[in-house]
Amino acid sequence: MGALRLPSLSTIFTSSSSTRFSSRSSSVFRRSSRLPHLIRPLNSANFSAQSTVQKAATNEVGSSGQKSKNQDRVITPRSQDFNAWYLDVIANAELADYGPVRGTMVIRPYGYAIWEAIQDYLNVKFKETGHSNMYFPQFIPYSFIEKEASHVEGFSPELAVVTIGGGKELEEKLVVRPTSETIVNHMFTQWIHSYRDLPLMVNQWANVTRWEMRTKPFVRTLEFLWQEGHTAHATPEEAEKEALQMIDVYTKFAYEQTAIPVIAGRKSKVETFAGASRTYTIEAMMGDKKALQAGTSHNLGQNFSRAFDTQFMDENGERQHVWQTSWAVSTRFVGGIIMTHGDDAGLMLPPKIAPIQVVIVPIWKKDDEKTGVLEAAFTVKDILKSAGIRINLDDSDQRTPGWKFNFWEMKGVPLRIEIGPRDVSNGSVVISRRDIPGKQGKVFGISMEPSSLVAYVKDKLDEIQSSLLNRASTFRDSNIVDVGSYEELKDAINQGKWARGSWSASDKDELKVKEETGATLRCFPFEQPKDRQKTCFMTGNPAEEVALFAKSY
Amino acid sequence: MGALRLPSLSTIFTSSSSTRFSSRSSSVFRRSSRLPHLIRPLNSANFSAQSTVQKAATNEVGSSGQKSKNQDRVITPRSQDFNAWYLDVIANAELADYGPVRGTMVIRPYGYAIWEAIQDYLNVKFKETGHSNMYFPQFIPYSFIEKEASHVEGFSPELAVVTIGGGKELEEKLVVRPTSETIVNHMFTQWIHSYRDLPLMVNQWANVTRWEMRTKPFVRTLEFLWQEGHTAHATPEEAEKEALQMIDVYTKFAYEQTAIPVIAGRKSKVETFAGASRTYTIEAMMGDKKALQAGTSHNLGQNFSRAFDTQFMDENGERQHVWQTSWAVSTRFVGGIIMTHGDDAGLMLPPKIAPIQVVIVPIWKKDDEKTGVLEAAFTVKDILKSAGIRINLDDSDQRTPGWKFNFWEMKGVPLRIEIGPRDVSNGSVVISRRDIPGKQGKVFGISMEPSSLVAYVKDKLDEIQSSLLNRASTFRDSNIVDVGSYEELKDAINQGKWARGSWSASDKDELKVKEETGATLRCFPFEQPKDRQKTCFMTGNPAEEVALFAKSY
Repeated sequence: MGALRLPSLSTIFTSSSSTRFSSRSSSVFRRSSRLPHLIRPLNSANFSAQSTVQKAATNEVGSSGQKSKNQDRVITPRSQDFNAWYLDVIANAELADYGPVRGTMVIRPYGYAIWEAIQDYLNVKFKETGHSNMYFPQFIPYSFIEKEASHVEGFSPELAVVTIGGGKELEEKLVVRPTSETIVNHMFTQWIHSYRDLPLMVNQWANVTRWEMRTKPFVRTLEFLWQEGHTAHATPEEAEKEALQMIDVYTKFAYEQTAIPVIAGRKSKVETFAGASRTYTIEAMMGDKKALQAGTSHNLGQNFSRAFDTQFMDENGERQHVWQTSWAVSTRFVGGIIMTHGDDAGLMLPPKIAPIQVVIVPIWKKDDEKTGVLEAAFTVKDILKSAGIRINLDDSDQRTPGWKFNFWEMKGVPLRIEIGPRDVSNGSVVISRRDIPGKQGKVFGISMEPSSLVAYVKDKLDEIQSSLLNRASTFRDSNIVDVGSYEELKDAINQGKWARGSWSASDKDELKVKEETGATLRCFPFEQPKDRQKTCFMTGNPAEEVALFAKSY
Repeated sequence: MGALRLPSLSTIFTSSSSTRFSSRSSSVFRRSSRLPHLIRPLNSANFSAQSTVQKAATNEVGSSGQKSKNQDRVITPRSQDFNAWYLDVIANAELADYGPVRGTMVIRPYGYAIWEAIQDYLNVKFKETGHSNMYFPQFIPYSFIEKEASHVEGFSPELAVVTIGGGKELEEKLVVRPTSETIVNHMFTQWIHSYRDLPLMVNQWANVTRWEMRTKPFVRTLEFLWQEGHTAHATPEEAEKEALQMIDVYTKFAYEQTAIPVIAGRKSKVETFAGASRTYTIEAMMGDKKALQAGTSHNLGQNFSRAFDTQFMDENGERQHVWQTSWAVSTRFVGGIIMTHGDDAGLMLPPKIAPIQVVIVPIWKKDDEKTGVLEAAFTVKDILKSAGIRINLDDSDQRTPGWKFNFWEMKGVPLRIEIGPRDVSNGSVVISRRDIPGKQGKVFGISMEPSSLVAYVKDKLDEIQSSLLNRASTFRDSNIVDVGSYEELKDAINQGKWARGSWSASDKDELKVKEETGATLRCFPFEQPKDRQKTCFMTGNPAEEVALFAKSY
């Protein structure tokens, strides 16, 4: 039953593990510069697939039907090949494209608008919780990275290094930031003198670079966008409180804005951030049941302040090292949204972060119907726009209404309003929900009267937002298995599910689970089941809490 | 009359022309890692000055008096040493600090908040004019840079180059973007197929890197933040219209938001952007009369589309290269604001982009006065905050009111509200303007009654905004000299002024002016004087327009 589809993009993006450009970019390049009139070289077979999947970017975030090419391209069914589906959705919905350097990504307007919605929400929350935005340089002296022992161990294999500047070989190599703890501490050391300078709480929105071998758009790219918060405190209690506060901000964001029912918890020692004393995480279950680490908040203890000698004079006149945190979410979250809510028809966006919440598709057959229908459509557009609803009117006459229905469904727009000649004479519209396919999600005869229309649309958007969260929560809960033994864990993981069980075993046991099952310890959830087993399912020793295991991105 | 001051920071930031770190960073580094208990090495004399000038960053964008150290540090008078004054203001007002790598800059919360105000305004304007935000990767294959002949000539000396990724030498070196035309065109070539895909109008907010030898905070740094717009059109007329539209957006922004009376015009061929057919610019006169190029908009013609083979099928079915533009403003604008409006007392911010528009300083002598005064101060704060005014209440009891007056003046806050016991009993406040020093700018007995207070404050902020623009315009106009001969130009430039005169001479003549006077042709202003000379002041040949010459940053 699988739909026909073009060669997958996955091979292009993830197959090359060499450190140079994929042959794709160089061949495309060669073709355009030297062989403009020749047919494409054979080895660009994959690339031509890619380039034909590209559609025209447009000025509008949503892109109009009129401008799109390859409109009849089919998306691989999600159930058939989740990875191919994911890449098809990204290409067809014009969320992102491949950059010329292996593993890099161009974030296209529709994808970037989702990131902007994430930024808009979090930026306000960060300021409300007392943080200021600022900006640290991205070039970090190589020696800085080496100062914190576990930090260098964690990051040195992934570094991009600048060795030439202004045409000359540099004496000290510069690292393109993979994260900023080291340079932040270098500066904090200069700014912090006394307890009066604390807490110091800042954030930056920035690009970061990690030389990843296996990349996947949004989920893991060589360069990505994120925010990184950095704070310094006078006491360990304050730092711990801050780290917990920020994972809580992320959790609320995930639930309320993106309708992703993440599980918040503490990382095991093995999975703790390179340089942190404790890492908190939010773990999301994707549509293929794999886990996605969607955000982290680290209690750094005094690890960096000792390495960089970041000290303050306390109220008793004694010098102490500061206690720190750092926390981040990235463009990976966009990948999480796609993989949580999407279906065979494509993207499905939670209304709160959808760049377009409502699309209007006018329907006419005869030319004399057109004027009246379009007039009504523009009126409806204005009504909803004034009410603060993000709306698009697809008034192109190059595409059929049916084509437009599919197109905007694929783009994940939560609500569609249809207006035909009969609707115009009735003073009403037809409204369809993206999350309920076919006739079941379609309601006829909604009045065009402004106040009732606005109320109806807002109400439906709220309903869809809740419905997506409920659906994802049900899916998540039905795919977590409580396990009482290692065998049961193996069974659960083999079925592609998450395993939850009491755990107090060693790091070595944890690594054994990873090796033998492919699953990692995602977190010790904050919310612990009441009726849990009191002994570790691995060792039989007493255990204080359950851990979650899953395969992950 | 010059105030005493600590060693200037200028030597540290601009003196080193080596490509490695300044000895400063390595010595600071060494000190903290290996010699924690020894006194500072001699060669860190400059650096200790720097580190003591640093004040504590705080969570609030404005920083409170309570937290600041070195509060009595004096700013070099502007008239005495403009460059030292500039660096002192940046350090004291906590706008920025030096990064560990030579020529890099940390943008601190108060400085970053000004950049955020710039972003907030322009981002809306870009979207209103039909552009979408997106993101291109910062790593560009070295070969891309070489494709457009004048582009490579302009940028290759300034490149930072990544040669190592993931621990391995890269086969093709990667350039850290100095600007994105090349990678943008690489992508546009894949997205643009037909005239229906045009115009394609995008923008990105990003960091860029140029390996500059002579750096200065905000004005010219190794890495800086900017926005870069990139568009593609079907006709040269459309591209020209777009390039002009965007320089107009920048001009309005400069006048209306930053109170900088820029002169908009066209660059000469010599000064045109590397790869552009035509460059438009806005030129601002700083307080030392030097010109600052504050924003540019380029008509790229088909230069990049030919180099990258970016073609479209026109309505007649023929393939054509697209016509393009690019345009940018950067964090340099923050430097322009400082150098346009600041005075001996420090920063002076135009109300529309001031992170804090009003500061309240409560005044009490006896403890029994404190409660009433603070209560009134909080009430006033709430009133103004609800009216959308960006306000800060400095209620610290560690500093005297006089100290606070100086501190917030130095930070450039447009209005100060003083509330003492007598004001409380009168139900009134005292309001002082930053732009009018002393008693002249001070008005007593302004009613605390909410609606009248809000109206008064908003009115005053508007007045200050206009007043700053008028003052800067008068200053600018009184320092532009109309010249009728090369001798007159030399005189004007020698006096540190700008010279304006009819010009149709050769590139060679233009370079001669530069060599002999240090002045460059800033632009051919859009607004041409009506009574101008009809012949070139240099050659006596017929001349169509006047040009502006000035020394510049």
